[in-house]
Parts: sequence; C-alpha cells; structure tokens
Amino acid sequence: MSIDAYMKEVGQHARSASRKLASVSTEEKNQALFAMADALETSRPLLKVENAKDVESGKEKGLDAALLDRLELTDARIDSMIEGLKQVASLPDPVGEITDMVYRPSGIHLGKMRVPLGVVGIIYESRPNVTIDAASLCLKSGNAAILRGGSEAYYSNQAIAHAVKQGLKAVGLPEYAVQVLNTTDRDAVGKLITMPEFVDVIVPRGGKGLIERISSSAKVPVIKHLDGNCHVYVDDQADLEKAYAIALNAKTRRYGVCNAMESLLLHKDIADGFLPKLAAAYAEKGVELVGCAETQKILTYIDSATEEDWYTEYLAPKLSIKVVSGIDEAIDHINQYGSHHTDAIVSQDYSKTRLFMTAVDSSSVMINASTAFADGFEYGLGAEIGISTDKIHARGPVGLVGLTSQKYVVMGDGHIRDN
Amino acid sequence: MSIDAYMKEVGQHARSASRKLASVSTEEKNQALFAMADALETSRPLLKVENAKDVESGKEKGLDAALLDRLELTDARIDSMIEGLKQVASLPDPVGEITDMVYRPSGIHLGKMRVPLGVVGIIYESRPNVTIDAASLCLKSGNAAILRGGSEAYYSNQAIAHAVKQGLKAVGLPEYAVQVLNTTDRDAVGKLITMPEFVDVIVPRGGKGLIERISSSAKVPVIKHLDGNCHVYVDDQADLEKAYAIALNAKTRRYGVCNAMESLLLHKDIADGFLPKLAAAYAEKGVELVGCAETQKILTYIDSATEEDWYTEYLAPKLSIKVVSGIDEAIDHINQYGSHHTDAIVSQDYSKTRLFMTAVDSSSVMINASTAFADGFEYGLGAEIGISTDKIHARGPVGLVGLTSQKYVVMGDGHIRDN
Repeated sequence: MSIDAYMKEVGQHARSASRKLASVSTEEKNQALFAMADALETSRPLLKVENAKDVESGKEKGLDAALLDRLELTDARIDSMIEGLKQVASLPDPVGEITDMVYRPSGIHLGKMRVPLGVVGIIYESRPNVTIDAASLCLKSGNAAILRGGSEAYYSNQAIAHAVKQGLKAVGLPEYAVQVLNTTDRDAVGKLITMPEFVDVIVPRGGKGLIERISSSAKVPVIKHLDGNCHVYVDDQADLEKAYAIALNAKTRRYGVCNAMESLLLHKDIADGFLPKLAAAYAEKGVELVGCAETQKILTYIDSATEEDWYTEYLAPKLSIKVVSGIDEAIDHINQYGSHHTDAIVSQDYSKTRLFMTAVDSSSVMINASTAFADGFEYGLGAEIGISTDKIHARGPVGLVGLTSQKYVVMGDGHIRDN
Repeated sequence: MSIDAYMKEVGQHARSASRKLASVSTEEKNQALFAMADALETSRPLLKVENAKDVESGKEKGLDAALLDRLELTDARIDSMIEGLKQVASLPDPVGEITDMVYRPSGIHLGKMRVPLGVVGIIYESRPNVTIDAASLCLKSGNAAILRGGSEAYYSNQAIAHAVKQGLKAVGLPEYAVQVLNTTDRDAVGKLITMPEFVDVIVPRGGKGLIERISSSAKVPVIKHLDGNCHVYVDDQADLEKAYAIALNAKTRRYGVCNAMESLLLHKDIADGFLPKLAAAYAEKGVELVGCAETQKILTYIDSATEEDWYTEYLAPKLSIKVVSGIDEAIDHINQYGSHHTDAIVSQDYSKTRLFMTAVDSSSVMINASTAFADGFEYGLGAEIGISTDKIHARGPVGLVGLTSQKYVVMGDGHIRDN
C-alpha cells in the first residue's frame, strides 16, 4: 500500500473512532486506561525484547549516550508509564461540561458544551514513554490519536501500541482510537500534517527544528511550543532576598527545561550592590555569565553579551545579564527579545507589578515567583501535553482542557427567529 | 518601495501599536471609537466622492448589479457605520478580566488574564463598511488591525481609513493601531498571511474561494468560516407543529445566509403525514425540493437528490430531503455530510435530544429551535467578526472574546520551586 493510501486509511479510522469517543462515558475511558496499564504489565517481557532491538540498532547507528539513555525502557520507566496511565484515569474528565448557560430575550437557552477536538496527531522524538503519555491524554479528553514516534524507537513504540490496542479492545472501545504509525517513512509525517479532513490538530513534541519544520508545512492547526527564553526582572524596589532566591532558583533548578531563566534584567540602582553576591552563587554552581557594558563594569571578568545572546535560550548553565534603566526598559526588552513563554518581576511596588502583569506579552507572567512554576503539574492541570507559545487556542501549559473545544448548545421549545 | 518592504513596515508598525494597545483603558478605546464616528460624519462628503470613483470604475469593469449595490456608500450606510462604532463602544471590554484564580499547594496564586491576540489581519471583499466593522472590533478588543479590502472598494476604503486614523490621533492612540493597506497588489495578501512575526491571526471574510485560497497558503493561524450546510432532523417523537414552524423558518427566513437549513431529515414514521403539508408551504415560497427515493415516494413530482446534494450549501431557495430510519442515521448523516456549522433536532423525547446534543459535531447544536438563531447578535455577543467552522480557538459566532487569548498570571511572595 502506498504511504498516501495508508495515511488515508489511518485518517478514516481515526475520524470514525473519534465520533464514537465523543459520547463515551468517563467510566469507560478510565477502564480503558486501567486495561492499558494491565496490558503494559503483561507485555513487560515483550517490551524489553522489542526495546533491545531499538537500543541495539541505535548503537550501530552511533547514537550518542544521552539519546541511547532516553531510548531505553528500564523497569522503572515501564513502572512510570503504568503509573502515568492510572494518574490520567484519576484526572477530571473535561468533556461534557456545559457552562455559561444564559436565557436570551428570544426565549432560547444558550450554553457552551466542552467537546473533544476530534483527531489529534502527535509527532515526537525518541522517548518511547511519550507514546503512553500522548495516548492517555488524548483518550481521556475523548480524542482519537494518531501517533508518530521517532524511527529510533520504532520497535518499542509498536510494542507499546500493541498493549494500548489490547486495553482498548478489552473494554470495547474502538481499537483505532489510538493508532501508532507503523512506518518510519518521512512522507507519512508530511501527509499527516496536511490532511485537515481527518486531523483536527497537530502537537509536535521535540526540538525547535522539528517544530519549525512541521509548522512551516502544516495545513492543520499546530499547537506548538518553540523556545523558552525566560526573564527575571529585579526592580529597584525588590526585596533583594526574594530576588536572590528567585534568580538562583529560576536559573539553577534545572538547566535543560523551557521554564529556566535565560536572561536576568537588573534595575541600575540595585545592580551594584546585588550582582556580586548573586554572581558568586552562580559561580559556585558553574553558571557562565555574559553581560551588557554596565554589567561588565560590576563583574569585570565576564564576557560581553552579543545581540544574539539576548535572543538565546541556552538550555545550559549560562546566563545573560542586562542592567536596565527601569521597568519600562525591562518590559520593552522582554517583549522584543523574549519568546513569550514565562517572565517574572521581583518588586515590592504594587503599581509596577500590576503594570508588568498587564504589559508583558507572555504565556505566563510571574510576580515575585520563580519562572520554574510554569508547568502543568504546578498549575494543577494534572498532566501536560506541552507548553504552548502560541496565542491561538491554548497558551502556556496545555493539559486535557487544551485538547478540547466548546460548541454552542441551544435549547428552545419550538422557537423560531422572527426578524 | 517593494511590496515586501512595505508589508514589513506595516507589520512592524502594527506590532509596535499592539504593544501599546494592550495596556490602553476601556475609556480610551471607547473615546477613539466615538472620535472615529465624528470623523466619519465630517468626512461624509469626501467618502461619497471617493466612493463614486469606485462605483464608476466598477461600472467600467462591468461588475454586476449586486456587486455594484454592495459597493455603494449611501447616506444610510454611512449612518449605519457611525451607529456601528457607537454600538461597539457600548459593548463590554473583554480585556483584563482575571478568572479561575486558585491557590496552589506551592503557595502561589494562579489565574488567567484575558489579553488581546496582538495583531489581527482581516481580508475581505467588496463591502466597504467591513472596514469599520473590523477596525472597531479589533480596537475594542485591544488588537492592532491590518485590513485589506477588495480592490473594487479601494478609494472608499482609503477614505474610511483616513477617518479612522483621525479618530485614533484625536485621542492620542497610536495611528498605526488600524492600517488599511494602500495597495491592491495581490502579493501584499500573500505576504500578510505569511509573516507570523508580525501577525497573530488572519480572519478572511468572503466567499468560500477566498477563504480556501488563504487557508491553503497561510503560515499564520486562520479563523475561518467555510460553508453552512445546516440540517434539521424531525424525529418520530417530534411535536409536528413545532417541527413545521422550525423547518419553515430555518429554510425560508433568508436564503443567502450561512445558518439557513439546506437539508431536512425526516424520521420514516412521520414522513408520510408531515411532508405533504410542509412541501405545500415550501411550494408557496418557491422553494425547490430534491429528495431521496423514500421522499420521492411521498412527493412523486420532485427530483432525486444526488450524492453531491447532501454536501451542498445551496444559499438559495432549494432544499434536499432525506427520510431516515431514526436518530442514529440522522446523526451519522449530519456528521458525514454536514459542515459542522449548525444542526437542529425537533423531538419531545428527552433522551434523544440529549444524545443529539452530545453526538452531533457542530459549532451550534439546536434542540427544538430554528438554525436561524446561530448568530452573534442572537447569542448576545453584540457583534460578530464571523462564524468559525474551526474547532481550534474560536468555534461558532466569533465576537470580541474570540479576538482575545488568555495568559497565566502567577502571584507569589518570593516563592521558588523546590523539586
């Protein structure tokens, strides 16, 4: 079968399954999640055999150690997938809720009902556990899923897919509710992102390169997460103890995460007194600093930050520092150089915090709190399928609700429109 | 200046204006709307002179009478634009609202703040009054607007744009908050829809051809309204008086609107008794009927409906009729052939109405009410920029709220993340 014919079949199966899923009860969906957990447990030996093929072939291809590590399905990781399924079962079901019910002058009742998006396509890289994450979140939100994992994890993903299918069948849900593509052909991705008749939204999970490639060719809406170039602005009216704790936490809690601070902005009146102590703490953690000319006057030993640095998400123990004249310059800098992900102000001045909250155009704006809080679990979403840097549809951490839409429901009793 | 350079400049101006608009007070936005109304009133003679150029050139180009009529700016139409501006000023401002504020176990307060999308691009066809509609809705929702009207209305739109700019300047808002492109070059549209760095969303307003062209080339999210192939399903447990009124209203209230019924589905047990009376009423209104084989047994004089008919939005006094075995077939038919716009059930049976509401995948689902209610004004949105047939972001009638997004706001007091 050609890739086009195969993808069309996958799309038709998904669309048809999604119609059934829209009316499935929460209880049935949860039972399916538990049945998948059981099937994973039963398939544990098979999962390891299949995973070993991927790891072996990864070694032959010369994948680096970090990639090989991410690829491996250890017992602990299988446990964690099983736990993840149970945890998604415990989350509230967003589907079916009717809100904003009003009584209109015409005599109709009008409300909004939360409904699944329909068919969600997820494209991801080498971690095979994403297959379970994505399958469970899509199922719980009533969506059919088409999953395309990285070719390095092909055998692992097929084995996981088999367990997922067993779980679905065990409780009588459509087996095509979750489909993992059984091809590593790149054309399959090209087709997946250009068939809006079968796919309602694409969620790419992976590096910036993958996401940019997909966004630029997609004909289906993409919920995308590009970079997290996050800032902390320390105001002249900051409580400097809080500022110290936040600046340290935001940069050094973890380096490779999208909510880590990449640029620190300091009010000119506090930079002198504040920066040396903070720089010493960064030095202890091995964080490399670069800065503007004013910063270099205080920390004479650091390199100059280039224009490119202000745009850069290091995802590493490196930080750019800029001394600013005040909150207006800080806001302008963040809106111009930031990635609209997460940005924080530290200040005791009420009016400045309020201005920052309104004027900073980011998916999360923090007042006197670390950027590290920008996370689906910290926000109480229970799980997240990603953090959206888009403004359309879902912004910030995307959980189950981000995989739903709302339709209008109108209740009349024979009502017709006169004018 | 090249089109590329011009569009880049327009984009930069819009982005910069949008940053300012995000923090502008409701009062300032309303004053700008009133100042635009005053400027339109003052420009009335100029508007007519400029409009006459368009009408003249339209005649030379041989535009048909309907198009020429839509193009003309009569005094009544200028009155109506002025009235529209005042009406948008009277609508509640969606921006700034903070909802869902919760206190998290970590000690942070977390809420969602409603914010403008940023820069909205609107592409529309010949009616010049859309310039005022679009400008006022974008401004009130805090968005900068880039407007591109039809080339037939070039002079009219430039004159309206001048009045809009006067209004913005009069109250000290950025004059680039609303920009009407001063070129009719098609490449300008191509550029507008492919510069996500400057434009956050595109709203095409016009025929299906325009919308499909834009959607297929856009690199910016599109809020699109394709067709309204709306259905009414009359159940065997319908109150047939209500069904008669609704079926008549949904089809004959107006023919050229997207919420008009295009296909009528009848339960097999009531078709015999119900259809002849209804068909007589349609005949009186001059509505042409086509139907399935079962329908043709009852109305022996009508033509057979083709497969194509079930997909067709006639926008005309024409209706396709299908006899179905029950609600399941009705739902399947609607989900397969419909356009997911607006569909209605007429039934007194509680369980069937509940099933229909859940299972029909349309932006508006009506129970015992005419499809004609699917409308921004009827829904209390005050005004609408269009009706979205997408599922992502905005679904159904799109008003001011549809032109906004939400960002997370986090309030701590020195909070850092431990784990």
